[in-house]
Amino acid sequence: MRATVMRDWKLSVEEVPDPVPGPTQVLARVLACGICGSDLHMLQHGAEQMRLMAELAESAPPEPFKLVALEPAAATVMGHEFCCEVVETAPGCDNLAVGDIVVSVPVAFDPDGLHAVGYSSRYPGGYAEAMVLNDVTGIRVPAGLSPRLAALTEPFAVGVHAVAKSRIEPGDAAIVLGCGPVGLAVIGALRLKGIGPIIAADFSPTRRALAAGLGVDEVVDPNETTAIAAWQRVDGVRPLVVFEAVGVPGMIDAAMRMVPRGSRVVVVGVCMQEDRIQPMAGIRGELSVQFVLGYEPDEFAQALQAIADGAVDLAPIITGTVDLDGVPGAFADLARPDAHAKILVEP
Amino acid sequence: MRATVMRDWKLSVEEVPDPVPGPTQVLARVLACGICGSDLHMLQHGAEQMRLMAELAESAPPEPFKLVALEPAAATVMGHEFCCEVVETAPGCDNLAVGDIVVSVPVAFDPDGLHAVGYSSRYPGGYAEAMVLNDVTGIRVPAGLSPRLAALTEPFAVGVHAVAKSRIEPGDAAIVLGCGPVGLAVIGALRLKGIGPIIAADFSPTRRALAAGLGVDEVVDPNETTAIAAWQRVDGVRPLVVFEAVGVPGMIDAAMRMVPRGSRVVVVGVCMQEDRIQPMAGIRGELSVQFVLGYEPDEFAQALQAIADGAVDLAPIITGTVDLDGVPGAFADLARPDAHAKILVEP
Repeated sequence: MRATVMRDWKLSVEEVPDPVPGPTQVLARVLACGICGSDLHMLQHGAEQMRLMAELAESAPPEPFKLVALEPAAATVMGHEFCCEVVETAPGCDNLAVGDIVVSVPVAFDPDGLHAVGYSSRYPGGYAEAMVLNDVTGIRVPAGLSPRLAALTEPFAVGVHAVAKSRIEPGDAAIVLGCGPVGLAVIGALRLKGIGPIIAADFSPTRRALAAGLGVDEVVDPNETTAIAAWQRVDGVRPLVVFEAVGVPGMIDAAMRMVPRGSRVVVVGVCMQEDRIQPMAGIRGELSVQFVLGYEPDEFAQALQAIADGAVDLAPIITGTVDLDGVPGAFADLARPDAHAKILVEP
Repeated sequence: MRATVMRDWKLSVEEVPDPVPGPTQVLARVLACGICGSDLHMLQHGAEQMRLMAELAESAPPEPFKLVALEPAAATVMGHEFCCEVVETAPGCDNLAVGDIVVSVPVAFDPDGLHAVGYSSRYPGGYAEAMVLNDVTGIRVPAGLSPRLAALTEPFAVGVHAVAKSRIEPGDAAIVLGCGPVGLAVIGALRLKGIGPIIAADFSPTRRALAAGLGVDEVVDPNETTAIAAWQRVDGVRPLVVFEAVGVPGMIDAAMRMVPRGSRVVVVGVCMQEDRIQPMAGIRGELSVQFVLGYEPDEFAQALQAIADGAVDLAPIITGTVDLDGVPGAFADLARPDAHAKILVEP
């Protein structure tokens, strides 16, 4: 099959062997797959990231499930925000059938262990014509929902999870720093939960417009005013939760410094570099900083259902589509955050 | 009256004017007052600390109550962990009476605003023969409780509050990093709540012995083994809360790196310098970092009651007593953390 392949932290479009489903797995044809900021980061800083994760794994107690590591020199097909059509079922499948349109949490398992689909040299992700999934993880896309919108399930689940972990409740106010796909997913999930007011901030006019379209109460350009000033203008009294969805050094400290006493900071942005904080900013206001990552399977299913029900309209987030040959160019486009939110690959 | 005075970040023992209670205030004779690590920090880094607090106050929304600032060039009597005897009541007092032995949250208020007793150039703290308190904040010490033990109410309340804010529940395990007065207060409060196992760590044999005396399950010397290794040996499965009670740069990062997925880190130590963290250590494990400070009035009262009831035996924490002339020497002794936990001043 054809695939956009990463090898030694470089992208190329190649013919690779067709993946073969093992027992209780299915072969699926990729219909749409979103490009995630984590993929850009993996391409640019993959070696560094693998060193950091190995270093962190050494200092903490062992995880109950070991993830099979990516092999940089092998061909890895990224893409973990996929919607597929099942084209073949191996023995032992009793969930999915040929012809099903499905999404899935991007995890595959076999006797060798767990594999992060899209960051695995064994299980290709969605930047390819086909992929292998475990039968049990597949969720059928409700009738009438387009594969494009269904492919937003994974990034939206990140927002649903962040909002759930924040323990924000109606009556609280929210600030979302950064209106890239992660920040927009958080905004969508906040709206779904009936939270308001929501203040959002981003330097990009495109992204601010997308945030406004999702129904935030105020969206500010940090060059002109601060999110906290906007919050003080429209509210200023409710318990406040700040979602940090930028993920670059300095943002956690900035969030901690801006908030009133007793606020919560939820770190959804993925900063992979060392960062500086002023602990006194946290101590003084008895802040809570909650780091979040990924989602639970039920949150993934909930994200799909909300998109299918039209409870959240994420269609405007899709700012471009490319075929497999267009993936390297799309990565370059996404490095300039002003132009795009989510680019989908349609192999 | 005689007092140990801080002026321009230097200590001296002097005659200062007797404080005069205003309406609804009382004059009280100091019986015992603990020396707090924050006082050492204020003496050594006070100017820097005031600059930092001013800088942080600028970036955050205004506080509802403004604290009247300390004037470095004026005489300030520190000491906020006091037990006193009421010797005079001004008009308007209906809580306290002459002869009452009392403790109080170290806050005074008058028409000019709120004052941090012990860090105020207007309201002397407990390193003096006498002090002025608001009638309404005083809590009578239960009969039979010595002023020395009653003076531990304030530092113990810090532990009670940290444990309450951590939302730790029986069934969870705790690690306490640092067994100075703050760490020991946390351990006492954890024991009061029936938490176990508790693992503690400190470089000082004296402090490790004090932690053991409070009933921790394991106490380790970080030169020999890690707290997390000890936790894995005695438990390794319960939800884990780590209390960071050291308060120097690097400790928050160290706590974040050592814990398993889903753990909580409670920052009780007061680090007043910029610090470095690796956000990925928090993201990877979806950690929560809760910063805490001080206590609520009801926690202060609860701390006094627990000491009075003998529910926690803090007597061994008192490793020395001095008179007013001995305060400067006691500050020097406390700068070498191996020798002491809490030194009390008995003016």
